[in-house]
Amino acid sequence: MKKALAVFAASLLMAGALSAQELSNFNFGGRQQIVSPEIADGQVTFRLAADYATVVQLAGNWLEGAVPMKKENGVWSVTIDLPSPEIYTYNFVVDGVSVNDPQNYMVQRDGTRYLNMLMVPGERTAPYFETDHRGTVTYKWYDSAILGINRRLTVYTPYGYEAKANAKKKYPVLYLLHGAGGDEEAWSSMGRAAQILDNLIEQGKAQPMIVVMPNGNPNQQAAQTLGLKTSDVNFRDPAYANAYVRSLCEEIVPFIEKEFRVNAKPESRAIAGLSMGGGHTISASTLYPAMFDYICPLSAAGSANDEQIQALKKAGVKLYFLACGTSDFLYEGSKTLDATLTKNGLDHIFYQSEGGHTWANWRLYLQTFAPMLFK
Amino acid sequence: MKKALAVFAASLLMAGALSAQELSNFNFGGRQQIVSPEIADGQVTFRLAADYATVVQLAGNWLEGAVPMKKENGVWSVTIDLPSPEIYTYNFVVDGVSVNDPQNYMVQRDGTRYLNMLMVPGERTAPYFETDHRGTVTYKWYDSAILGINRRLTVYTPYGYEAKANAKKKYPVLYLLHGAGGDEEAWSSMGRAAQILDNLIEQGKAQPMIVVMPNGNPNQQAAQTLGLKTSDVNFRDPAYANAYVRSLCEEIVPFIEKEFRVNAKPESRAIAGLSMGGGHTISASTLYPAMFDYICPLSAAGSANDEQIQALKKAGVKLYFLACGTSDFLYEGSKTLDATLTKNGLDHIFYQSEGGHTWANWRLYLQTFAPMLFK
Repeated sequence: MKKALAVFAASLLMAGALSAQELSNFNFGGRQQIVSPEIADGQVTFRLAADYATVVQLAGNWLEGAVPMKKENGVWSVTIDLPSPEIYTYNFVVDGVSVNDPQNYMVQRDGTRYLNMLMVPGERTAPYFETDHRGTVTYKWYDSAILGINRRLTVYTPYGYEAKANAKKKYPVLYLLHGAGGDEEAWSSMGRAAQILDNLIEQGKAQPMIVVMPNGNPNQQAAQTLGLKTSDVNFRDPAYANAYVRSLCEEIVPFIEKEFRVNAKPESRAIAGLSMGGGHTISASTLYPAMFDYICPLSAAGSANDEQIQALKKAGVKLYFLACGTSDFLYEGSKTLDATLTKNGLDHIFYQSEGGHTWANWRLYLQTFAPMLFK
Repeated sequence: MKKALAVFAASLLMAGALSAQELSNFNFGGRQQIVSPEIADGQVTFRLAADYATVVQLAGNWLEGAVPMKKENGVWSVTIDLPSPEIYTYNFVVDGVSVNDPQNYMVQRDGTRYLNMLMVPGERTAPYFETDHRGTVTYKWYDSAILGINRRLTVYTPYGYEAKANAKKKYPVLYLLHGAGGDEEAWSSMGRAAQILDNLIEQGKAQPMIVVMPNGNPNQQAAQTLGLKTSDVNFRDPAYANAYVRSLCEEIVPFIEKEFRVNAKPESRAIAGLSMGGGHTISASTLYPAMFDYICPLSAAGSANDEQIQALKKAGVKLYFLACGTSDFLYEGSKTLDATLTKNGLDHIFYQSEGGHTWANWRLYLQTFAPMLFK
C-alpha cells in the first residue's frame, strides 16, 4: 500500500494532476527532511527551505527585532540560545512576508493571526503539558435574548465529571474571560486552561471545577464560523459594554447552572478575565455584587469606585485577586484599583509579575489564583 | 480607551518593545487595509502585501499549477474566475515558500499543514454553513487497554440532545472515520460534519444522531498535543490495522454507549470512513459483522472476500453504501468491492462521483448517505 501510493504519487506529480487528490500528508519519498525547531544543548535551531528567497529572518515574541537567517543548500537556518522555559510564538519573515514554519504543526491562533509555538520545557511550562487525567472540552451554543443572537462558548469539565461515582456531585464554576481580539477559544488554546486545571486538580492543588470560557465580543456568534449573523453592537463602544456583561450574568450563568451539575451559589462562582475581560470582570462584580465570591481581574482594562467596592465588601467577597505585569501598559490602572480597594478596606491580593500584557503572564495568573478558589 | 491604545501602540512601536505586549489584534491606525479573498461579479481577487518579494504566486487545490500574481504599490494581486460553489484551499507562494493569506483567518488544518479556505457560496455549499439549530461538539478522552494509551475523540450531539423534553430520548450513533494523515478533528474541520448534520437534521432530512469521530492513528493519543505518550504501533504496518479496529469496536463503542443516551443495538449503529478510514470501516464490518447495520466505505483503501460478505448478508445489514470518485486512485478497488457485493447478492449502493480523493467528495458522500441512516 505504502509503495503503491508512492509510485502513484510520482505519476501524479508528473501528470500535474495533484489537485485531484488530497494526499499531501502521505510521506512522499525524496522530500527533504528538515527539523524545525530543534532544541539541543541549550540552543534552538530554526530551519526553512527557501531556495529562491533573498532575505529570511526569524521573528519571535521573545526576540528584540528580527534575527537574520543564513542559507546553505537551499535551507535557511539560525541557531540561538534557548530562552527560559515558557511557551513562545514565532514565525519566519521571507522577503518581508510572515510565514509559518511548515515543519512545526504546533500553531496558535491569536484572533485572526496564526503563530507557531516554541515550547521550552522546564518547571515553568510543566503545567502546560498534558497530564494523565484530562478533563473534557465542549463547544456549546446558548441563546442570548439580550444580544439577539445565539452564541458559542467553551466549557471545561474536570476529569471524573462523567464518572458514576460523581453522578450526584455538584461542582463550582470559574467564568474565565478573554481580552479584545480573543474569542471563546483563546483561554483553551493560548491560555492552556484545560492543561493548567488538569495539572492543578491532579496534584490536589485546586478543587475540581468547571471552567466556562464565553466569547466576549457581543457582535460575534462564535470564532471562525461561516455565514453567521452578527449583531449591530460595536463592542468597543462603551455604551454597549454592559450588554455583554448582562448577558454573561443573566443568561450564561443560568444556562450553565441548568446544563451542568453546578452549585448555584455565590461561594461556588468565580469570575476572572484578562484585559478587556478584566474590565468585564470588574463590571460584572460591580453590577452584580452578590453573584461571585471570587473576583480576579488580570491586566484589567477597567476601574471601580468607592461605592462599588463598598457594595462588594458588604456582599462578602471571599477573594479579590488583582494581577498585573509591572511593564504592562495597564499597570497604572491596576495600581489605582489596588489603592481603591485598600482605601475601602477590602481584603485583596495585588499580584505583580514581571513583564507586560502577555499570555505568559495570564497563564501564570491562572495557575496562581485557581488554587485559591472555592476553599 | 481606543485612542489611548493607539497612542500607546505608536510609542511602543517607536520604542521597539512590542514583544512585551500582545496587542496585535487591536486595529492600529495606519495599517494598510487589504481584503483577500474578495468575491465579486463571478470573480475572486487574492491580495498579499509583499513589497520585497521577487515572485508571488497563488496555489489552490482547484488550480492546475501556480498562478502568477502582479505587484502594484507593494501589493501583489490576481483576479481569476470564481470556481463553482465548493470549499477550496489555497495559499500563496512567495519566492518559493508557501505562505498563508494573512487577511483570511479561515484556515483548515490538514494533518500538519495549514491551508486557507475559499468558500464559494451556492447550493452545493449551503449545507456547510452554520444553520440556526446547532449541535454540541465535545472533545473527550477514553482509555484504550488494547492500544495501551488513553486517547481523544470528537463527539457531535445533535441540537436538542440536552433539552429537558428529550431527557429520556435515546439516539443512534454514526462512527465517522478519517483517512491517513487525518485525526479526530478532520471530519469536524475539513469535513464540516457538524454543519452538514445540523442542516440535514434541521430540514428533517436526517434522523437526529450522535456522530463519533475518533483518532484512527493508533500511535497517537490526540492531534496537536504536547508531551503525550505515543504507542509503539506503526499504523502503516498492516499487521497492526486490527488493533485500532478492535479498539473501536470493543472500547470506543461501549464507551460511547455508556457516556451518552444511545440505542445500543445494531440498527442504531452506523460506520463510515474515508480512505484509510474506509479500510477501517470494511475491517470493522467483517470482524464484527453483527455490530453495525449501516456500513459506508468512502474512497476506501480495503477489500472484502466472499465469506466476509456472506457473513454480513447473514447478519442482515440494512445499508451498504460504497462511494468513490471516478478519478480516485482507489477507484479500481471500489469497483472490485462493488463486484464482490453484487456477486454475493448483498443489496448495496455504489455511489460514483466525479473527481478524486478529495474532501469535496467526502463532504458530498456524508450528505448523501446520512439521510439513509436509521430509517
